Amino acid sequence: MMSLNKSKLTIDYTGMMHSDQNPKGLLKKELQGLQPLLDKAEAALAVLRETGKLDFSKLLPEMQTQLPEIKAYADQVASRFENFVVLGIGGSALGPLAVQQALKHYYYNELTAENRSYRPRFYVLDNIDPVRFQELCQVLDPGKTLFNVISKSGNTAETMAQFLIVRDNLRRLCGESYAEHIVVTTDQEKGNLLPIALKEGFKRFVIPRGIGGRFSELTPVGLLAAAICGIDVEELLAGAWEMDQWIREARDVFTNPAQLKAALAYLSWQKGKNISVFMPYVDGLKTMADWYAQLWAESLGKRRNRGGEVVSLGQTPVKALGVTDQHSQVQLYTEGPDDKTVTFVTLDKFKFSQEIPIDRDLPEDIQFLGGRTLEELLFAEQKATEYALTLAGRQHQKIILSALNAHAVGQLLLLLEWETAYMGELLNINAFDQPGVEEGKNGTYALMGRAGYERKKQDIEKYGQEKYVLTPTM
Amino acid sequence: MMSLNKSKLTIDYTGMMHSDQNPKGLLKKELQGLQPLLDKAEAALAVLRETGKLDFSKLLPEMQTQLPEIKAYADQVASRFENFVVLGIGGSALGPLAVQQALKHYYYNELTAENRSYRPRFYVLDNIDPVRFQELCQVLDPGKTLFNVISKSGNTAETMAQFLIVRDNLRRLCGESYAEHIVVTTDQEKGNLLPIALKEGFKRFVIPRGIGGRFSELTPVGLLAAAICGIDVEELLAGAWEMDQWIREARDVFTNPAQLKAALAYLSWQKGKNISVFMPYVDGLKTMADWYAQLWAESLGKRRNRGGEVVSLGQTPVKALGVTDQHSQVQLYTEGPDDKTVTFVTLDKFKFSQEIPIDRDLPEDIQFLGGRTLEELLFAEQKATEYALTLAGRQHQKIILSALNAHAVGQLLLLLEWETAYMGELLNINAFDQPGVEEGKNGTYALMGRAGYERKKQDIEKYGQEKYVLTPTM
Repeated sequence: MMSLNKSKLTIDYTGMMHSDQNPKGLLKKELQGLQPLLDKAEAALAVLRETGKLDFSKLLPEMQTQLPEIKAYADQVASRFENFVVLGIGGSALGPLAVQQALKHYYYNELTAENRSYRPRFYVLDNIDPVRFQELCQVLDPGKTLFNVISKSGNTAETMAQFLIVRDNLRRLCGESYAEHIVVTTDQEKGNLLPIALKEGFKRFVIPRGIGGRFSELTPVGLLAAAICGIDVEELLAGAWEMDQWIREARDVFTNPAQLKAALAYLSWQKGKNISVFMPYVDGLKTMADWYAQLWAESLGKRRNRGGEVVSLGQTPVKALGVTDQHSQVQLYTEGPDDKTVTFVTLDKFKFSQEIPIDRDLPEDIQFLGGRTLEELLFAEQKATEYALTLAGRQHQKIILSALNAHAVGQLLLLLEWETAYMGELLNINAFDQPGVEEGKNGTYALMGRAGYERKKQDIEKYGQEKYVLTPTM
Repeated sequence: MMSLNKSKLTIDYTGMMHSDQNPKGLLKKELQGLQPLLDKAEAALAVLRETGKLDFSKLLPEMQTQLPEIKAYADQVASRFENFVVLGIGGSALGPLAVQQALKHYYYNELTAENRSYRPRFYVLDNIDPVRFQELCQVLDPGKTLFNVISKSGNTAETMAQFLIVRDNLRRLCGESYAEHIVVTTDQEKGNLLPIALKEGFKRFVIPRGIGGRFSELTPVGLLAAAICGIDVEELLAGAWEMDQWIREARDVFTNPAQLKAALAYLSWQKGKNISVFMPYVDGLKTMADWYAQLWAESLGKRRNRGGEVVSLGQTPVKALGVTDQHSQVQLYTEGPDDKTVTFVTLDKFKFSQEIPIDRDLPEDIQFLGGRTLEELLFAEQKATEYALTLAGRQHQKIILSALNAHAVGQLLLLLEWETAYMGELLNINAFDQPGVEEGKNGTYALMGRAGYERKKQDIEKYGQEKYVLTPTM
């Protein structure tokens, strides 16, 4: 079905490993020692895959078969609408945003229609701040806008609130034809959105049953948005499939990238690294760090293990961007506590090169820039940061993509999803649920006055009766 | 000089403190017990202020006197240029960006000129990714663009590289008049940019001597950009001055907001919280989290204390955004390890209200939204998240701004700067240097072939001779 080895993804984990310069690094035999656990994880994940818990991998071929319908619809709406707005939150927002920002122009929405190949501008409304909501409405002509409501259950309060407002606006402005401005991505059989979509005649795409929000990018959740923006969705899936095959076929920690990365994370975590920094040296991958942060935090931050014991574990993901954050965070990473590992993401090659002009009149300490390129400077800074971290005894690794294209992004998504799944197994927790989100939802229902939550409301009002508040007295 | 108490900033630290619901919270007497240390810190900071290390506070009145020149220049260029681009990195970028995003339209650059009150579009180029650089050039007409080069020393490699490219482009495109497209913000007396600016006739603004990048927002670094975007810079300074006075006049931990916040941070840090989450529930403050992350990380992440002992301390700042990240990070914050505190930032009131329409046909579990407003939902979710954290035994606090306006943003900036300064004193480290950044700079010089760094280059090349690399074998 797909082209193999079209672009190479490399993991350089030298900075994690013991050496003369890195005496606190991991030993090869520590990695080897995890193999029995990894073998067990592999077997457990194979079972999960067969029973519908690992659909981000299992359903890739099926997604491929859905592409013709997705692309046909995307082409049709691309010629009709000037704007495409995702209404979604969490995985429904972070995935589409990360992929669009990685693969399209950095200032995409400011390009002329021609320079966008007559594709719509792209917005993701992932919050309910009333000011931002209204400000978005100010820059969009609703008559020329398509809204994609994404929620599997249709009871995501934020998304449904947005939907109700948008639908109301569209009805007033577009009359009967309002339904053509709404496309719904939701469950096949149940939830609140499905009957509304059927009744009102919204175009509809399906989120496969076994997929949670943070693993849903390579389903219609992400593929529709990508296709509408003109991203090569075949290549995205091809890269994902290539990585998926690699991970399912390679059998040990030194050849299987997901096993390797999970093992490195697990050993570091055991040694007290409770922070995992994700630091691309590529502006287009800045939003990918947000996507990764949800994946890692929500999958692995768990109170109970599979045996029901209270373990309260999880690494905190931190997003950074090189070289920018060398001037913001790297002081802490090198000199602060030894409580984190850093994962760099770099490219073999940027799409463009940018030369720095020579000026012989410049002072010595900036003269050296002339005649070099921006990317040479960027690569030198990345390597120098690695070296500074190593000198400081801090561990780091690097994911190297051949280029920033759809194939490589597909590879990266699957690698990180599989790494997370393996890490869940090593930690013996369920990486696919999010029980901690429920308490907050119930509290919201109570405070919004939903029937049946009166008792909870009383509890919340009781909390904080003893207030500690500082206000100005001047 | 300024209006006092125009808008109230409140700190609600109930969620940090011991109570029936929060048995692991701090005791009032623990805060009281820090008073001697805080008194010592206050005295030390007063000395630093007199000796030019606390110019972010000391120079506020002087900045006020510079406003007429800044505003006059801003008005002049606003009518002439369609675009304003900051070339800077670290504090030179994060401050201007945070304030602009807090106080201007969320989709500012997409507004018509009229809706921008004929102010220029605003860009901050804070990285050297060659693709982003060229893509920015694609959406700007250089003939209608003003570039603000910000670097105190003029040897910031990234900014100087950008400057060299932009100057070259402008010379080719605008001929003799190229110098009118460049305004330089740099040191008064020294550095590499100053002689270039003098020789080529660039308009020039001064970064006061005693101010480091991360404390420079309320100097011409940030004030010029703000004025050009039409932000009320008087109110920004007035809010800052009000907070500055409050902090310098209130004498104890329960009345001084900087002492209080530093004490809360210090006690939490002592109890093993090595992570500090900054989580505004306001879309406009998303970038403020980046600014805060630099301030906290670079100021407090230090290898040695003032006595020269190796301490390797510092809390890792994490940026989050409510309600969005409830669907991404809060699972970890409630169920994961008890290794963090969360600081919420909320508003008393949003500028706009947005009602959610009623639809009696909706299923019960979303019916409750109808007739309420987006901001009610947002406030309920924030409060529910507080409650969920408290139930889970996790500590949190809340900064409440009266509204998102220039006065409140000025207050917030000074509060966080003073908190950081106090925290530095409590930790007995120098919060105003960044020695760890040097090693990376030297490495970059070496790898870029700068004369005098040959030995360093050899060292770097020696590192990682034993490579650990995983590449696909299929």
